[in-house]
Amino acid sequence: MKKDISPAVINRLPRYYRYLGDLREHEVIRISSRELSERMHVTASQIRQDLNNFGGFGQQGYGYNVANLQDEIGKILGLDRSYNLVVIGAGNLGQALANYTDFERRGFFVRALFEKDEKKVGKSVRGIKILPASSLEKYLKENKVDIAALAIPREDAASVASILVNNGIKAIWNFAHTDLRVPADVHVHNVHLIEGLMQLSYKLTNESSDEE
Amino acid sequence: MKKDISPAVINRLPRYYRYLGDLREHEVIRISSRELSERMHVTASQIRQDLNNFGGFGQQGYGYNVANLQDEIGKILGLDRSYNLVVIGAGNLGQALANYTDFERRGFFVRALFEKDEKKVGKSVRGIKILPASSLEKYLKENKVDIAALAIPREDAASVASILVNNGIKAIWNFAHTDLRVPADVHVHNVHLIEGLMQLSYKLTNESSDEE
Repeated sequence: MKKDISPAVINRLPRYYRYLGDLREHEVIRISSRELSERMHVTASQIRQDLNNFGGFGQQGYGYNVANLQDEIGKILGLDRSYNLVVIGAGNLGQALANYTDFERRGFFVRALFEKDEKKVGKSVRGIKILPASSLEKYLKENKVDIAALAIPREDAASVASILVNNGIKAIWNFAHTDLRVPADVHVHNVHLIEGLMQLSYKLTNESSDEE
Repeated sequence: MKKDISPAVINRLPRYYRYLGDLREHEVIRISSRELSERMHVTASQIRQDLNNFGGFGQQGYGYNVANLQDEIGKILGLDRSYNLVVIGAGNLGQALANYTDFERRGFFVRALFEKDEKKVGKSVRGIKILPASSLEKYLKENKVDIAALAIPREDAASVASILVNNGIKAIWNFAHTDLRVPADVHVHNVHLIEGLMQLSYKLTNESSDEE
């Protein structure tokens, strides 16, 4: 599937997907762009523009068919298949990622955790085994892995990333607070947690309540 | 301090701050925009434009004074003071947040965790106490709290957010996968983890390696 959709629209798709999923859970069959815009606190015109990329679901006087539109956005996002994940680092964060059952509901299955601390190796999280970090390369050669999450300190990130890249991993979800240097065909999504705190401290410092 | 800096620049500041911090740790005194651009993989002209907002630190033929520039960016980000945090939810994610010593290095101190599961109450994480969820309101009235992190399921997010707002909290770091409805003077920074996975599945599905 190839559609020419702008990156800004792509970034907004997960939120549409979530709102449509909520409506679907509440057995809402159809919704107008006006109603959706009120729920999502964005303009109806932005919604119409964004969703026009998926043509055929919005109809004058009818609105959007909730289930069809969510399915179509899901396909664009690649959610019509499942993904095998490994998590590198079985500290609190790595274990938190393995514990999220929401990920599985959307097709993202954590298959193994890897950890260099031998005291944790052999244990498991929600039935998912913690394997020794030294066995990562062998595991990647023997199993199909789509996405690797890096939940390790920044000092270890470069060496682990090169093992991942050398073994064909094309998607890295990076929680280590450093920029990974990877080939152009490897996709990295960074979650630099402290930068969220810095955005908040910026706002607390620079935006007083009467400004908004 | 009030400066008229665009949101796009603000979003990039934490990354400048990190790179300058790394240089400073390596005892680099000054750096040219060209050298910084090579390290950061952005254009030298973008760097010059961005950093011109902080005038006086870049000089023709000298470059930037690393320590001064980092300090100045830190001031803009509000990092010249410290912040008291509470974490609501002492599951793996909440404990991971309490365990990050990097946050303290930048002035963000987790002072307490709150948890409704009574088995966890009374324990502590790195010396930080896990208090009963029912005592949150009392704690907020008796202690100065700048930022609250929500590491709880989405079902509980709205009710906890209203306790926070009613007790004067102006900054919420929201990990619950829902949009909080708060007054305009309350700043929310969302970390919707699954949306990162969706961005990766989109790229795996739609961007083959020969496109880039």
